[in-house]
Amino acid sequence: LETKLPKVGTTIFTVMSQLALEHKAVNLGQGFPDFAVPQRLVDALARAMAEGRNQYAPMHGIPALRQAIAAKTQRCYGRKVDADSEVTVTSGASEAIFDAVLAVVRPGEEVIVLDPCYDCYEPAIDLAGAVAVHVPLDPQDFSVDWQRVREAITPRTRMLMVNSPHNPSGAMFGASDMQALADILRDTSIVLLSDEVYEHIVFDGARHESVLRHPELAERAFVVSSFGKTYHCTGWKVGYAVAPPALTAEFRKVHQYNTFCTFAPAQFAFADMIENEPSHYEELGAFYQSKRDRFREQLLETRLEPLPVPGGYFQLVDYSKVSDLPDAEFCRWLTVEKGVAAIPLSPFYARPPEGQRLARLCFAKEPATLDAAIERLSAI
Amino acid sequence: LETKLPKVGTTIFTVMSQLALEHKAVNLGQGFPDFAVPQRLVDALARAMAEGRNQYAPMHGIPALRQAIAAKTQRCYGRKVDADSEVTVTSGASEAIFDAVLAVVRPGEEVIVLDPCYDCYEPAIDLAGAVAVHVPLDPQDFSVDWQRVREAITPRTRMLMVNSPHNPSGAMFGASDMQALADILRDTSIVLLSDEVYEHIVFDGARHESVLRHPELAERAFVVSSFGKTYHCTGWKVGYAVAPPALTAEFRKVHQYNTFCTFAPAQFAFADMIENEPSHYEELGAFYQSKRDRFREQLLETRLEPLPVPGGYFQLVDYSKVSDLPDAEFCRWLTVEKGVAAIPLSPFYARPPEGQRLARLCFAKEPATLDAAIERLSAI
Ligand SMILES: CSCCC(=O)C(=O)O
Ligand SMILES: CSCCC(=O)C(=O)O
Repeated sequence: LETKLPKVGTTIFTVMSQLALEHKAVNLGQGFPDFAVPQRLVDALARAMAEGRNQYAPMHGIPALRQAIAAKTQRCYGRKVDADSEVTVTSGASEAIFDAVLAVVRPGEEVIVLDPCYDCYEPAIDLAGAVAVHVPLDPQDFSVDWQRVREAITPRTRMLMVNSPHNPSGAMFGASDMQALADILRDTSIVLLSDEVYEHIVFDGARHESVLRHPELAERAFVVSSFGKTYHCTGWKVGYAVAPPALTAEFRKVHQYNTFCTFAPAQFAFADMIENEPSHYEELGAFYQSKRDRFREQLLETRLEPLPVPGGYFQLVDYSKVSDLPDAEFCRWLTVEKGVAAIPLSPFYARPPEGQRLARLCFAKEPATLDAAIERLSAI
Repeated sequence: LETKLPKVGTTIFTVMSQLALEHKAVNLGQGFPDFAVPQRLVDALARAMAEGRNQYAPMHGIPALRQAIAAKTQRCYGRKVDADSEVTVTSGASEAIFDAVLAVVRPGEEVIVLDPCYDCYEPAIDLAGAVAVHVPLDPQDFSVDWQRVREAITPRTRMLMVNSPHNPSGAMFGASDMQALADILRDTSIVLLSDEVYEHIVFDGARHESVLRHPELAERAFVVSSFGKTYHCTGWKVGYAVAPPALTAEFRKVHQYNTFCTFAPAQFAFADMIENEPSHYEELGAFYQSKRDRFREQLLETRLEPLPVPGGYFQLVDYSKVSDLPDAEFCRWLTVEKGVAAIPLSPFYARPPEGQRLARLCFAKEPATLDAAIERLSAI
């Protein structure tokens, strides 16, 4: 049996989490919080089970959750979306990305991705029989060179995938990025896939430039998000895609035969939470900003140099004062020898930049966890 | 945007459930129970949440659940499977089927399916760029004509999909089917996909011929099952695939980038349940057999003729004494005018047999629900 995905191995997140476990390292690798899910959410899920919400949910999600997502979308981004024809609940943002790619991308077509990018983009493109076209972000500040994106477009380009706040760098699109994006896509039939799972984790008063704020973009886009990042429950695997009716119809054809529907009791819990405790997502930026700031202060006392973090819950550090190892080897060394698991950036690239000496640390952690990591990092 | 799945509409299950709701019909359509999930399972899930099992599960499932599945497989079918390299937890059996097809089937290849078959098989095949080759079951007793299967094989055949106990008919493979299957596949490189979600719902002392009982078959097969059917929680969407290491490795490449992992707290709950309350699945056949028998007795008093039900939780009825409508129209009429939702068989076929007058009724229901349905069915 010859593999259909020759480039795919075990994801770097699994590899580093296992290594962290084996070596009792403080795990700042895989992106997940080590603190509790809001109690309201846990209680609402338990209530849904007790009330017997244990059979198939509607394929596209329960009405209350789709309506809550639509209301939040209007509240946060000023866009009115129709809960029935434009919102689909999925088993995590990853399923949503996978479904969107399979739904609209055909064999022989091209999909533009901006490197570094999350590692699930390319396998979905490969399985659709299409080709991923990699455009690198600026290696210093992870900004997009839109001229290079424009030049990457061919008559075969079917989709462009973007991600802001950006994993792994935390970079965020500004108004001029959205303008450039609109200019580039205008007069093409390219579908935009916007991965916005860190939408509520933005800092310093910045505004998240959701594609949903920009009608010209939204009308050709899948906007994907996840409750895992917003509600501290990455293991619950509930996400969603918002897209205009024609795109949603194609998306659902895939979703319907992929997972069919998503764990029903959690849908009731998220509907309750979004509707009744909007302060949770409103205050999420401030919640993480204080973690970011404290962690940065601590890192400044080490030989790792923290880069700016506009959004998301990852801190990039330049380790060139410490080591000249390539990033994969450095992160392995850091985990095994120094007891702190980090994620290298090279797996996020088709062609990692020569000599880049960056590692990613997740700061979605209790202060005690970050303190323990800093204690170890201070010794390197 | 031209659709990639021109044949796909809304599934018949969603269509009929919505129609049932609109017309306040007793819903014997979509296959789900209307009784409670075992309390132990609900408690174990709540406990897992309280214990903080809310972040990403391992991609292939938590060890305790994979081990419980492996132990059950050995216990039920005498096959030793390795929990690490041969068991993968998925977001329902549907995700498992979807992943398996995408993992091994290539563009231009063929996949043999036996009609009538579950409606998610063909869209997965289509998305893999392959062709579904439909071999009809016997229209009387839904047995397989293995000679026809043999004749359908070409050098392009990559996979054969089977399902026992069978949805919608309840037909079950016997020892001679397994022998024929082995004979046909021997000396080919065809991968077998065995959908066994009704594995524990078998009647009259019959033995479920799991592919896992047959080493020659198991070594080339994905065996897919689901906890939704076994534990009365179709909305929890936890299933799994058992396959030899080489097939599992390919399967996980897709799973990893599709849903990545499955709702974590439920995995702890199922591990606890399988290990500590095996009587649940051991007694499931008897539990449903009494429902089947009672429902059959009641149906014999109506003008619908119940067919034999060797396994599963669906009762086929021949309605030709009542109506000459094609099945889709009959089921619509039955739902709208007579207040009982049923599922027609034609959506399970590429070419429905001429003049077949069968409808599917789900008997995974409380006695009161079935009584209410019978009262209405007695009037037709
Ligand atoms: C699916 S595991 C990876 C989690 C994550 O979002 C990250 O670490 O980037
Ligand atoms: C995914 S909805 C269909 C449920 C089912 O298994 C059936 O009714 O056949």
